[in-house]
Amino acid sequence: MTAISSVTIRRACRGDVGSIVAMLADDPLGSARERLEDPLPQLYFRAFEVLERQPHIQLVVAEDSDGAVVGCLQLCILPGLSSQGASRGLIEDVRVATRCRSRGIGEQLVQWAVAEARAKGCKLVELLTHHTRVDAQRFYARLGFARSHVGMTLRF
Amino acid sequence: MTAISSVTIRRACRGDVGSIVAMLADDPLGSARERLEDPLPQLYFRAFEVLERQPHIQLVVAEDSDGAVVGCLQLCILPGLSSQGASRGLIEDVRVATRCRSRGIGEQLVQWAVAEARAKGCKLVELLTHHTRVDAQRFYARLGFARSHVGMTLRF
Repeated sequence: MTAISSVTIRRACRGDVGSIVAMLADDPLGSARERLEDPLPQLYFRAFEVLERQPHIQLVVAEDSDGAVVGCLQLCILPGLSSQGASRGLIEDVRVATRCRSRGIGEQLVQWAVAEARAKGCKLVELLTHHTRVDAQRFYARLGFARSHVGMTLRF
Repeated sequence: MTAISSVTIRRACRGDVGSIVAMLADDPLGSARERLEDPLPQLYFRAFEVLERQPHIQLVVAEDSDGAVVGCLQLCILPGLSSQGASRGLIEDVRVATRCRSRGIGEQLVQWAVAEARAKGCKLVELLTHHTRVDAQRFYARLGFARSHVGMTLRF
Protein backbone atom coordinates (compact mmCIF):
# COMPACT_ATOMS: atom_id res chain seq x y z
CA MET A 1 0.00 0.00 0.00
CA THR A 2 1.46 3.28 -1.12
CA ALA A 3 1.19 6.13 1.38
CA ILE A 4 -1.25 8.96 0.77
CA SER A 5 0.44 11.97 -0.78
CA SER A 6 -0.76 15.26 0.61
CA VAL A 7 -0.96 17.83 -2.16
CA THR A 8 -1.64 21.53 -2.43
CA ILE A 9 -4.53 22.41 -4.70
CA ARG A 10 -4.14 25.79 -6.35
CA ARG A 11 -5.39 27.67 -9.38
CA ALA A 12 -3.48 26.73 -12.55
CA CYS A 13 -1.21 29.35 -14.06
CA ARG A 14 0.18 29.69 -17.58
CA GLY A 15 3.36 27.85 -16.57
CA ASP A 16 1.28 24.75 -15.73
CA VAL A 17 -0.24 24.36 -19.20
CA GLY A 18 2.48 21.96 -20.43
CA SER A 19 2.14 19.71 -17.36
CA ILE A 20 -1.65 19.66 -17.70
CA VAL A 21 -1.58 18.78 -21.40
CA ALA A 22 0.97 16.01 -20.67
CA MET A 23 -1.52 14.48 -18.18
CA LEU A 24 -4.44 14.89 -20.59
CA ALA A 25 -2.41 13.12 -23.31
CA ASP A 26 -1.25 10.30 -21.05
CA ASP A 27 -4.04 7.79 -21.59
CA PRO A 28 -5.48 5.84 -24.51
CA LEU A 29 -8.32 8.32 -25.16
CA GLY A 30 -6.25 11.44 -24.58
CA SER A 31 -3.22 10.38 -26.65
CA ALA A 32 -5.40 10.34 -29.76
CA ARG A 33 -6.88 13.75 -29.01
CA GLU A 34 -3.99 15.91 -27.83
CA ARG A 35 -0.85 17.31 -29.47
CA LEU A 36 1.95 16.93 -26.93
CA GLU A 37 4.67 18.64 -28.98
CA ASP A 38 7.73 20.71 -28.11
CA PRO A 39 7.06 23.60 -28.21
CA LEU A 40 3.48 23.08 -27.11
CA PRO A 41 0.99 24.27 -29.77
CA GLN A 42 -0.15 27.82 -29.15
CA LEU A 43 -3.82 26.72 -29.24
CA TYR A 44 -3.42 25.37 -25.69
CA PHE A 45 -2.17 28.73 -24.43
CA ARG A 46 -4.96 30.54 -26.24
CA ALA A 47 -7.51 28.20 -24.62
CA PHE A 48 -5.88 28.88 -21.24
CA GLU A 49 -6.24 32.64 -21.77
CA VAL A 50 -9.96 32.17 -22.51
CA LEU A 51 -10.32 29.99 -19.40
CA GLU A 52 -8.63 32.57 -17.20
CA ARG A 53 -11.30 35.13 -18.11
CA GLN A 54 -14.22 32.92 -16.99
CA PRO A 55 -15.29 33.78 -13.45
CA HIS A 56 -17.44 30.63 -13.23
CA ILE A 57 -14.63 28.19 -14.13
CA GLN A 58 -11.69 27.14 -12.04
CA LEU A 59 -8.89 25.04 -13.53
CA VAL A 60 -6.81 23.82 -10.59
CA VAL A 61 -3.70 21.70 -10.21
CA ALA A 62 -2.46 19.45 -7.41
CA GLU A 63 1.13 20.24 -6.50
CA ASP A 64 3.26 17.83 -4.48
CA SER A 65 5.70 18.81 -1.73
CA ASP A 66 8.47 19.25 -4.33
CA GLY A 67 6.37 21.73 -6.29
CA ALA A 68 5.66 19.27 -9.13
CA VAL A 69 2.23 19.35 -10.78
CA VAL A 70 0.78 15.86 -10.31
CA GLY A 71 -2.93 16.33 -10.99
CA CYS A 72 -5.55 18.64 -12.44
CA LEU A 73 -9.31 19.26 -12.44
CA GLN A 74 -11.68 21.79 -13.95
CA LEU A 75 -14.78 22.92 -12.04
CA CYS A 76 -17.56 24.94 -13.62
CA ILE A 77 -20.44 26.47 -11.64
CA LEU A 78 -23.65 26.36 -13.67
CA PRO A 79 -26.69 28.33 -12.53
CA GLY A 80 -30.10 27.22 -13.81
CA LEU A 81 -33.81 27.21 -13.06
CA SER A 82 -34.29 23.47 -12.47
CA SER A 83 -34.22 21.88 -9.00
CA GLN A 84 -35.67 25.11 -7.55
CA GLY A 85 -33.06 27.34 -9.11
CA ALA A 86 -30.13 25.34 -7.77
CA SER A 87 -26.70 25.81 -9.29
CA ARG A 88 -24.79 22.72 -10.35
CA GLY A 89 -21.08 22.06 -10.28
CA LEU A 90 -19.65 20.33 -13.35
CA ILE A 91 -16.35 18.50 -12.88
CA GLU A 92 -14.21 17.95 -15.98
CA ASP A 93 -10.75 16.89 -17.05
CA VAL A 94 -9.70 15.12 -13.84
CA ARG A 95 -6.22 13.66 -14.28
CA VAL A 96 -3.45 12.37 -12.03
CA ALA A 97 0.11 11.82 -13.36
CA THR A 98 0.65 8.08 -14.02
CA ARG A 99 3.60 7.82 -11.62
CA CYS A 100 1.49 9.28 -8.79
CA ARG A 101 -1.67 7.16 -9.04
CA SER A 102 -3.24 5.35 -6.04
CA ARG A 103 -1.99 7.92 -3.56
CA GLY A 104 -5.27 9.68 -2.93
CA ILE A 105 -4.46 12.65 -5.16
CA GLY A 106 -7.55 12.27 -7.36
CA GLU A 107 -9.68 12.00 -4.24
CA GLN A 108 -8.23 15.23 -2.82
CA LEU A 109 -8.94 17.00 -6.13
CA VAL A 110 -12.53 15.77 -6.31
CA GLN A 111 -13.20 16.50 -2.63
CA TRP A 112 -11.85 20.00 -3.17
CA ALA A 113 -14.28 20.46 -6.10
CA VAL A 114 -17.23 19.12 -4.10
CA ALA A 115 -16.45 21.44 -1.18
CA GLU A 116 -15.98 24.40 -3.53
CA ALA A 117 -19.27 23.68 -5.34
CA ARG A 118 -21.10 23.48 -1.99
CA ALA A 119 -19.48 26.72 -0.87
CA LYS A 120 -20.73 28.35 -4.09
CA GLY A 121 -24.30 27.23 -3.29
CA CYS A 122 -24.55 24.21 -5.60
CA LYS A 123 -27.01 21.46 -4.70
CA LEU A 124 -25.50 18.94 -7.09
CA VAL A 125 -22.16 18.05 -8.62
CA GLU A 126 -22.11 16.15 -11.91
CA LEU A 127 -19.59 14.75 -14.35
CA LEU A 128 -19.33 12.66 -17.49
CA THR A 129 -16.84 9.81 -17.61
CA HIS A 130 -16.21 7.78 -20.76
CA HIS A 131 -18.02 4.45 -20.61
CA THR A 132 -14.70 2.61 -21.00
CA ARG A 133 -13.23 4.27 -17.87
CA VAL A 134 -14.49 1.61 -15.49
CA ASP A 135 -11.84 2.39 -12.85
CA ALA A 136 -12.91 6.04 -12.85
CA GLN A 137 -16.55 5.04 -12.37
CA ARG A 138 -15.60 2.86 -9.38
CA PHE A 139 -13.52 5.74 -7.99
CA TYR A 140 -16.42 8.22 -8.22
CA ALA A 141 -18.89 5.69 -6.78
CA ARG A 142 -16.56 5.28 -3.78
CA LEU A 143 -16.74 9.06 -3.27
CA GLY A 144 -20.55 8.91 -3.19
CA PHE A 145 -21.42 9.65 -6.82
CA ALA A 146 -24.39 7.78 -8.32
CA ARG A 147 -24.38 6.36 -11.86
CA SER A 148 -27.63 8.19 -12.43
CA HIS A 149 -27.33 9.48 -16.00
CA VAL A 150 -26.31 8.57 -19.51
CA GLY A 151 -23.75 10.97 -20.95
CA MET A 152 -24.30 11.62 -24.64
CA THR A 153 -21.94 13.45 -26.98
CA LEU A 154 -21.89 14.76 -30.52
CA ARG A 155 -18.46 15.56 -31.98
CA PHE A 156 -18.09 17.81 -35.03
CA MET B 1 -48.87 11.49 -37.66
CA THR B 2 -49.01 14.98 -36.18
CA ALA B 3 -47.62 17.76 -38.34
CA ILE B 4 -44.30 19.41 -37.50
CA SER B 5 -44.80 22.67 -35.60
CA SER B 6 -42.44 25.39 -36.66
CA VAL B 7 -41.37 27.38 -33.62
CA THR B 8 -39.37 30.52 -32.97
CA ILE B 9 -36.41 30.00 -30.67
CA ARG B 10 -35.53 33.09 -28.65
CA ARG B 11 -33.75 34.05 -25.46
CA ALA B 12 -35.94 33.53 -22.37
CA CYS B 13 -37.13 36.63 -20.54
CA ARG B 14 -38.38 37.07 -16.98
CA GLY B 15 -41.97 36.66 -18.12
CA ASP B 16 -41.19 33.11 -19.33
CA VAL B 17 -39.98 31.81 -15.95
CA GLY B 18 -43.42 30.48 -14.95
CA SER B 19 -43.88 28.61 -18.24
CA ILE B 20 -40.39 27.13 -18.00
CA VAL B 21 -40.86 25.93 -14.41
CA ALA B 22 -44.22 24.41 -15.37
CA MET B 23 -42.45 22.36 -18.06
CA LEU B 24 -39.62 21.39 -15.69
CA ALA B 25 -42.20 20.21 -13.14
CA ASP B 26 -44.29 18.28 -15.66
CA ASP B 27 -42.63 14.87 -15.48
CA PRO B 28 -42.06 12.21 -12.82
CA LEU B 29 -38.53 13.39 -11.94
CA GLY B 30 -39.28 17.09 -12.12
CA SER B 31 -42.53 17.00 -10.14
CA ALA B 32 -40.58 15.81 -7.08
CA ARG B 33 -37.94 18.52 -7.47
CA GLU B 34 -39.83 21.69 -8.37
CA ARG B 35 -42.27 23.98 -6.54
CA LEU B 36 -44.93 24.94 -9.04
CA GLU B 37 -46.89 27.31 -6.78
CA ASP B 38 -48.92 30.43 -7.37
CA PRO B 39 -47.25 32.86 -6.95
CA LEU B 40 -44.09 31.16 -8.18
CA PRO B 41 -41.42 31.06 -5.44
CA GLN B 42 -39.00 33.97 -5.69
CA LEU B 43 -36.03 31.59 -5.78
CA TYR B 44 -36.81 30.86 -9.45
CA PHE B 45 -36.69 34.57 -10.30
CA ARG B 46 -33.46 35.02 -8.36
CA ALA B 47 -31.94 32.09 -10.29
CA PHE B 48 -33.12 33.68 -13.54
CA GLU B 49 -31.41 36.96 -12.61
CA VAL B 50 -28.15 35.06 -11.99
CA LEU B 51 -28.55 33.26 -15.33
CA GLU B 52 -29.11 36.51 -17.21
CA ARG B 53 -25.71 37.79 -16.07
CA GLN B 54 -23.80 34.77 -17.49
CA PRO B 55 -22.39 35.56 -20.93
CA HIS B 56 -21.55 31.88 -21.52
CA ILE B 57 -25.09 30.59 -20.86
CA GLN B 58 -28.18 30.94 -23.00
CA LEU B 59 -31.58 29.88 -21.70
CA VAL B 60 -33.91 29.83 -24.71
CA VAL B 61 -37.57 29.06 -25.26
CA ALA B 62 -39.48 27.75 -28.25
CA GLU B 63 -42.51 29.92 -29.01
CA ASP B 64 -45.34 28.70 -31.23
CA SER B 65 -47.19 30.82 -33.81
CA ASP B 66 -49.65 31.96 -31.10
CA GLY B 67 -46.81 33.25 -28.93
CA ALA B 68 -47.13 30.41 -26.39
CA VAL B 69 -43.96 29.04 -24.82
CA VAL B 70 -43.89 25.33 -25.70
CA GLY B 71 -40.28 24.33 -25.06
CA CYS B 72 -37.02 25.33 -23.41
CA LEU B 73 -33.31 24.51 -23.43
CA GLN B 74 -30.20 25.81 -21.70
CA LEU B 75 -26.86 25.90 -23.52
CA CYS B 76 -23.56 26.56 -21.79
CA ILE B 77 -20.28 27.11 -23.66
CA LEU B 78 -17.38 25.61 -21.71
CA PRO B 79 -13.81 26.43 -22.68
CA GLY B 80 -11.10 24.00 -21.61
CA LEU B 81 -7.63 22.71 -22.45
CA SER B 82 -8.55 19.14 -23.45
CA SER B 83 -9.13 18.08 -27.07
CA GLN B 84 -6.57 20.68 -28.19
CA GLY B 85 -8.18 23.53 -26.33
CA ALA B 86 -11.63 22.91 -27.80
CA SER B 87 -14.67 24.45 -26.18
CA ARG B 88 -17.61 22.18 -25.43
CA GLY B 89 -21.29 22.96 -25.48
CA LEU B 90 -23.33 21.56 -22.60
CA ILE B 91 -27.07 21.15 -23.22
CA GLU B 92 -29.30 21.11 -20.14
CA ASP B 93 -32.95 21.29 -19.13
CA VAL B 94 -34.50 20.39 -22.48
CA ARG B 95 -38.27 20.28 -22.15
CA VAL B 96 -41.29 20.36 -24.45
CA ALA B 97 -44.81 21.02 -23.13
CA THR B 98 -46.71 17.70 -22.87
CA ARG B 99 -49.50 18.82 -25.21
CA CYS B 100 -46.94 19.70 -27.91
CA ARG B 101 -44.79 16.55 -27.95
CA SER B 102 -43.95 14.61 -31.15
CA ARG B 103 -44.12 17.71 -33.32
CA GLY B 104 -40.39 18.19 -33.83
CA ILE B 105 -40.09 21.00 -31.27
CA GLY B 106 -37.41 19.26 -29.20
CA GLU B 107 -35.46 18.55 -32.35
CA GLN B 108 -35.60 22.21 -33.39
CA LEU B 109 -34.35 23.24 -29.93
CA VAL B 110 -31.46 20.76 -29.95
CA GLN B 111 -30.49 21.57 -33.55
CA TRP B 112 -30.47 25.25 -32.59
CA ALA B 113 -28.11 24.44 -29.68
CA VAL B 114 -25.82 22.33 -31.87
CA ALA B 115 -25.62 25.09 -34.51
CA GLU B 116 -25.02 27.74 -31.84
CA ALA B 117 -22.26 25.66 -30.19
CA ARG B 118 -20.57 25.16 -33.58
CA ALA B 119 -20.84 28.88 -34.30
CA LYS B 120 -19.15 29.57 -30.94
CA GLY B 121 -16.24 27.30 -31.94
CA CYS B 122 -17.17 24.18 -29.98
CA LYS B 123 -15.89 20.82 -31.23
CA LEU B 124 -18.28 18.80 -29.09
CA VAL B 125 -21.74 19.05 -27.61
CA GLU B 126 -22.55 16.97 -24.55
CA LEU B 127 -25.47 16.33 -22.22
CA LEU B 128 -26.55 14.16 -19.33
CA THR B 129 -29.91 12.45 -19.46
CA HIS B 130 -31.33 10.45 -16.55
CA HIS B 131 -30.88 6.72 -17.08
CA THR B 132 -34.65 6.22 -16.84
CA ARG B 133 -35.33 8.64 -19.74
CA VAL B 134 -35.09 5.97 -22.41
CA ASP B 135 -37.20 7.96 -24.90
CA ALA B 136 -34.86 10.94 -24.51
CA GLN B 137 -31.84 8.71 -25.18
CA ARG B 138 -33.46 7.40 -28.37
CA PHE B 139 -34.29 10.96 -29.40
CA TYR B 140 -30.69 12.16 -28.97
CA ALA B 141 -29.31 9.06 -30.71
CA ARG B 142 -31.56 9.86 -33.68
CA LEU B 143 -29.98 13.34 -33.78
CA GLY B 144 -26.50 11.79 -33.96
CA PHE B 145 -25.49 11.78 -30.29
CA ALA B 146 -23.47 8.77 -29.07
CA ARG B 147 -24.07 7.09 -25.70
CA SER B 148 -20.38 7.52 -25.00
CA HIS B 149 -20.26 8.42 -21.31
CA VAL B 150 -21.63 7.57 -17.91
CA GLY B 151 -23.15 10.58 -16.15
CA MET B 152 -22.47 10.56 -12.41
CA THR B 153 -24.03 12.88 -9.85
CA LEU B 154 -23.66 13.73 -6.19
CA ARG B 155 -26.60 15.55 -4.60
CA PHE B 156 -26.15 17.44 -1.31
